[in-house]
Amino acid sequence: MISPLAPNSYPDLPPIAGVKLATAQAGIRYKDRTDVLLVELSEGTIAAGVLTKSLTASAPVLACREALKGGKARALVVNSGNANAFTGSVGLASVERVTEACAKIIACPPSAIYTASTGVIGERLPDEKITQALGFLAEKLSENVWSDAARAIMTTDTYPKMATRTAEIAGTHVTINGIAKGSGMIAPDMATMLAFVFTDAAIPSAALQAMLSEANATTFNCVTVDGDTSTSDTLLLFATGKAGNSAGDYADFKRALHELLLELALHVVKDGEGAEKFVTITVTGADSDQAARRIGMSIANSPLVKTALAASDANWGRIVMAVGKAGEKADRDKLMIKIGGVVVASEGMADAAYKESQIEAHMKARDIVIEVDVGVGSGKSRVWTCDLTHRYIDINGSYRT
Amino acid sequence: MISPLAPNSYPDLPPIAGVKLATAQAGIRYKDRTDVLLVELSEGTIAAGVLTKSLTASAPVLACREALKGGKARALVVNSGNANAFTGSVGLASVERVTEACAKIIACPPSAIYTASTGVIGERLPDEKITQALGFLAEKLSENVWSDAARAIMTTDTYPKMATRTAEIAGTHVTINGIAKGSGMIAPDMATMLAFVFTDAAIPSAALQAMLSEANATTFNCVTVDGDTSTSDTLLLFATGKAGNSAGDYADFKRALHELLLELALHVVKDGEGAEKFVTITVTGADSDQAARRIGMSIANSPLVKTALAASDANWGRIVMAVGKAGEKADRDKLMIKIGGVVVASEGMADAAYKESQIEAHMKARDIVIEVDVGVGSGKSRVWTCDLTHRYIDINGSYRT
Repeated sequence: MISPLAPNSYPDLPPIAGVKLATAQAGIRYKDRTDVLLVELSEGTIAAGVLTKSLTASAPVLACREALKGGKARALVVNSGNANAFTGSVGLASVERVTEACAKIIACPPSAIYTASTGVIGERLPDEKITQALGFLAEKLSENVWSDAARAIMTTDTYPKMATRTAEIAGTHVTINGIAKGSGMIAPDMATMLAFVFTDAAIPSAALQAMLSEANATTFNCVTVDGDTSTSDTLLLFATGKAGNSAGDYADFKRALHELLLELALHVVKDGEGAEKFVTITVTGADSDQAARRIGMSIANSPLVKTALAASDANWGRIVMAVGKAGEKADRDKLMIKIGGVVVASEGMADAAYKESQIEAHMKARDIVIEVDVGVGSGKSRVWTCDLTHRYIDINGSYRT
Repeated sequence: MISPLAPNSYPDLPPIAGVKLATAQAGIRYKDRTDVLLVELSEGTIAAGVLTKSLTASAPVLACREALKGGKARALVVNSGNANAFTGSVGLASVERVTEACAKIIACPPSAIYTASTGVIGERLPDEKITQALGFLAEKLSENVWSDAARAIMTTDTYPKMATRTAEIAGTHVTINGIAKGSGMIAPDMATMLAFVFTDAAIPSAALQAMLSEANATTFNCVTVDGDTSTSDTLLLFATGKAGNSAGDYADFKRALHELLLELALHVVKDGEGAEKFVTITVTGADSDQAARRIGMSIANSPLVKTALAASDANWGRIVMAVGKAGEKADRDKLMIKIGGVVVASEGMADAAYKESQIEAHMKARDIVIEVDVGVGSGKSRVWTCDLTHRYIDINGSYRT
């Protein structure tokens, strides 16, 4: 079943000079599904990344952290079906074997190979299935299989997540493509489960990393499905430099990158496990932007708020509860809550003019808009989430079987 | 439907000298159910309490906070069906009217009246229904209706929660009775939704409060159903002094109080909304006891852990994830996880000797035991929770209708 929040059509991702992709069915866990992605990057490609802050990070995350110190990239290998997380030295050895096999094929140092894995935690990665597939993958590399790439990294995702933007740097047009996957264990502490972004722009490493970190803070770091932070969260950005732009003002690139990351992040929410409603929560009047984000996340992660939304129930008292438990400053007697643009509560109590019939239609819709002002300062933040439905329980009770 | 985790029988609570109770159907929200409880306390009764830390605390919680400053108590009025939370000055006026009407009947200062309310947030409390019932309640006060009292404070609870203990102070036997209610919005930040404890012991105010706060920290503050902290959490302890004990060593009383609070707290979990499994999580090897509790709560509140448990799935990778996201120190490569006494993971990976068949029967049972050692220190804590089932979603999608 495809998420009811899926888009009607997917964008057509153009080629990015210096980026070639291929996918294969390696049979890691799933049958009759592609589960390995190889991306070859031209010489001179610069990498930037943000990785999970989880203390039980996966082996590929640890390896990416090392590779990012060099900052150069020639290939990316991703598998779905097995996260290679909590697999100890065995897991690191798997990453090494994949990295070395790939480096041999691409003819580059192993330090230029990035890997990512997503799927079940705590089981040995059958890395021989990946290394065996690499030769086949290298032969069918193509500039035009972005949709295949987005599909190969899916786990419980019900649709592929892709986005594309163009920007101008010093008079030269550059392109940015991105793919991502969800769809449970989504409460990124640095980045979501897996997202890969590619551009032909030529941007120095430090500037690239700074722009990625900044854009990540208000996109992937502001979405949640279930409040569970993954061991494998990985967001990587590769810049091939093939557009040949000269150095200049990166403001337009930054704008495009932010838009693209937000589009991908919102797809992750819209394909959240069991999601039937897409919820935008804006918090204003907080002590700081960070406080506003925490209050927003407290609302977005509350099982009581999420089950009420699933039932189209305007139970705004639960929003009050979630503000109260967030641990951030809020003035109860100035608290204002709007749902679908209608003021339901103000000055610490139900609004005198509010009637539930005013928002009945809004509550039944796919897109729910919640605004909360906590009345203590000028901090603000916007976060996005989905509702909590029976299907979340079904999906997660049967995930391994 | 009564929780499958409910006890086979309820304890018979003995009278407590100086405590009389009565219940009535005031029709606050529910039909054909008692929803108001009056408890009269003899002169000289000392009160201690812990209240929610929520910043959106209910009107009765604010009033209790004031009353506890005086520390004397003559009566307690509790209603279910309406929380009188987020009701602003209107809500405080409701508390005042109930308090004044009760003070008149009992013939005591209003400052000796405690109130508590539980139910829907954000709706005006129909306090006139309570004040009208007070006369009737005062006439039928009795020492022997503890079970009725426990039932009158229920909301989505499926069974009444009661416990009793005896202790010895300076050679005199004293009795402690307690009642509590759950059963959703349970992640107490100071105390659970509502719990009331009564004793005939004579104990000075400061000692009483200190013992209550200490016992609360490892009982109510260590249970969670859904991670949502209520606006109304209230735990009150009333000591009538009628046992006539002299001052002395309170160690045995402290032991009995802790046992009683734990029994009530575990009932709150066992009657957690939709609960089908009772889960005990012990965390050892943490940086501090507080760090161990946070890691335990991270596991206990993870929707992915809870849905796996509901499906009897030994998906221990999700326990690893929850340890990783807790934000407390943990050594991934020393992490040890036991389920049902069987080591499933050790030294940062699946245990070599572990086979899933070893814990299959345990996973299908009602009582699940999880032990985690995070390998960095000597901090330890135990927390309790329940699984996340379809019924939680049903209950909370239809709560107000």
